Amino acid sequence: MKSFINVKPESHFPIQNLPYGVFRPRHGGKPRIGVAIGEYVLDLSVLEKAGLLKETGVEDRGIFDQPSLNPFMALGKNVWKKVREILQHLLNEDEPALRDDPWLRRAALRKQSDVELLLPAQIGDYTDFYASKEHATNVGTMFRGKENALMPNWTHLPVGYHGRSSSVVISGTDVHRPKGQMKPLDKDQPIFGPSQQLDIELEMGWFIGLGNERGQPIPIKNAEEHIFGLVLVNDWSARDIQAWEYQPLGPFLSKSFATSISPWVVPLEALEPFRVEGPKQEPPPLPYLQKDEASSFDIELEVYLKGKDMGHSQKIISTNFSYLYWSMAQQISHHTVAGCNLRPGDLQASGTISGPQKEKRGSLLELTWRGAEPMNLYNGEQRVWLEDGDEITMTGWCQGDGYKIGFGEVTGRILPALE
Amino acid sequence: MKSFINVKPESHFPIQNLPYGVFRPRHGGKPRIGVAIGEYVLDLSVLEKAGLLKETGVEDRGIFDQPSLNPFMALGKNVWKKVREILQHLLNEDEPALRDDPWLRRAALRKQSDVELLLPAQIGDYTDFYASKEHATNVGTMFRGKENALMPNWTHLPVGYHGRSSSVVISGTDVHRPKGQMKPLDKDQPIFGPSQQLDIELEMGWFIGLGNERGQPIPIKNAEEHIFGLVLVNDWSARDIQAWEYQPLGPFLSKSFATSISPWVVPLEALEPFRVEGPKQEPPPLPYLQKDEASSFDIELEVYLKGKDMGHSQKIISTNFSYLYWSMAQQISHHTVAGCNLRPGDLQASGTISGPQKEKRGSLLELTWRGAEPMNLYNGEQRVWLEDGDEITMTGWCQGDGYKIGFGEVTGRILPALE
Repeated sequence: MKSFINVKPESHFPIQNLPYGVFRPRHGGKPRIGVAIGEYVLDLSVLEKAGLLKETGVEDRGIFDQPSLNPFMALGKNVWKKVREILQHLLNEDEPALRDDPWLRRAALRKQSDVELLLPAQIGDYTDFYASKEHATNVGTMFRGKENALMPNWTHLPVGYHGRSSSVVISGTDVHRPKGQMKPLDKDQPIFGPSQQLDIELEMGWFIGLGNERGQPIPIKNAEEHIFGLVLVNDWSARDIQAWEYQPLGPFLSKSFATSISPWVVPLEALEPFRVEGPKQEPPPLPYLQKDEASSFDIELEVYLKGKDMGHSQKIISTNFSYLYWSMAQQISHHTVAGCNLRPGDLQASGTISGPQKEKRGSLLELTWRGAEPMNLYNGEQRVWLEDGDEITMTGWCQGDGYKIGFGEVTGRILPALE
Repeated sequence: MKSFINVKPESHFPIQNLPYGVFRPRHGGKPRIGVAIGEYVLDLSVLEKAGLLKETGVEDRGIFDQPSLNPFMALGKNVWKKVREILQHLLNEDEPALRDDPWLRRAALRKQSDVELLLPAQIGDYTDFYASKEHATNVGTMFRGKENALMPNWTHLPVGYHGRSSSVVISGTDVHRPKGQMKPLDKDQPIFGPSQQLDIELEMGWFIGLGNERGQPIPIKNAEEHIFGLVLVNDWSARDIQAWEYQPLGPFLSKSFATSISPWVVPLEALEPFRVEGPKQEPPPLPYLQKDEASSFDIELEVYLKGKDMGHSQKIISTNFSYLYWSMAQQISHHTVAGCNLRPGDLQASGTISGPQKEKRGSLLELTWRGAEPMNLYNGEQRVWLEDGDEITMTGWCQGDGYKIGFGEVTGRILPALE
């Protein structure tokens, strides 16, 4: 499959991907919905008005002339599938409808550099899981010792907690170093000040499309039908604030100052060729968490750091989504098993994705082993935690035969704490 | 101050109260906003259309012809104050504008029994605190022993966690017994099934009116300006699911199956005559949590249980809001100190409100001391946890001189677990 739009082999956005996003033209205009194709964004509100998305279930509703994907998400899998088919057809090199219509091309195709990307959805609830066994083991070992690294519940259920929706921000948003209460080990009393242990967490998130009624759990066999698509997530974390606040009710202010996501939502369907088995689960989970089909995906993930005195960024993490112990399907099914209702636009994230080797650890906490092994940067600097001016960029992709299904990137820079 | 509408002394809704709610006429019609007065609801969308709310800051915006209070909440304290003044003026026994206009009275005043009350706001984020020292001490003693009852952080900051917005429901909503994973003490492996330890938590909640920008904390001296009003909260809790899931990231499915709130939002201004000092805080909190003025309120709180074989309900809890150790102002200020942004319509709740004596404990867990002291009901039954068919009703009020500022009630009934 090839588009009449020139897409370089290293591009994240070939015709096989077509991730959804919300954008606003830089020269003005309302937010609306588009898909990324090569260096362009295809404006779906224009296609819809031109009558090219008929017979998909979205016709005449202005569903793409909206500041969020929520209404489209709520239409469910069959509609998403039809829209995707039509878009792949319209963008195909052999199809003249868009290719040979200069007016339509001018109206519907914009350079990505000419648009501002916004949060793709209005997030009702954000849930963060803790689904990487390597991450949970690393953190547990550091805080409780090797023998007690994993809590007894960890291998039986995907541990998760409610996060903060209001402070989910789009890639490119700067983040001021948070201030808060913490208790250094050498102090008797807690102190107040800027966090000294600011960290990242490399995660992937997925947006819920169709939700469920309260009290009606989603069986695991249907769970993936509720996934609209995936994004990259940087779950910024203030470890010193977290260590002092988190018992017994979990992380709170140490996370809720900002959570950054990438702007393009990659449809689950685009990931199908990259479906793989996840890790073997031993002990086997309870029946409501059992699924026969492979439920993980081979997604390469990388993190780059660029300090304010560095001329270029340096890769600090290289890992893979498929290391995650608990699948998205298991996380969704577990989330609803006691009756919790999910809604279109809900964001769920995996928790830090770490792999078996050191460079595959998805946080500075683990990479530097809580400061015991500082990280060397190419310009002679070291890092244990983030410094003011540091810019973090996360990226990810599936490598196909001559093409990539990419997630673009999520980036953010640390600014000094506000007075 | 007295209204031309007859309000009985025991009513929760005299002219001094005027709580806001969202209602829909039972015979049909759109949701809109009203205030409770005696046995009536005054339809503010009618007053607004009639031009009676001019010069308040809401004129011509249709702000009360809405299915949620969020747009009104976002207008801030000065507008709330003006609207309240006008409503108290219009309802005053000496004021003829509404009193002597039969058409307007018929259009604007409905019996509460003729309307359905809906969720008062679209809740962006819901936060649950843990602000009662007696509650935290009771729970800690049961789970960790008397010596380690309070975590070291508890007296230094108001511990809180993110709750689930999607499953906040209005009073009167039935709740199916949740199913989930739990690990009974006598079992080696976790099991799956209906919760056997279903509990209530008596809490009060407050809706955030005006929010703050991300990164811009709310100083404690301004914190109360962000409170639109208060409601009763029943934070249904499945203790067996909670005990197994909550480490290390906090409660999740044990709470997110349902949280019930009362429909009438009592303005903070109506509570001013009942402002009292909270408990002395020792050690003194860090400066960002210090406030000189009294910041608690004398609100009587009661909980009633009615089993399916009981002819009438029985009072099981009688406590007071003013036992709370951490004030609402402290909870709001703490919530934002690291940069978290609050939005109009956010719901925050206190956590279980327990007092120093046994009958003042705000949960069955504490009342029955985890089953060691079962509760006797008047018909010979006992309770440790909730049984199917049990109906729980929470109520609360401030006792004025010849009037009550009441919260109405939040009620909910337990239905059997779904197959």
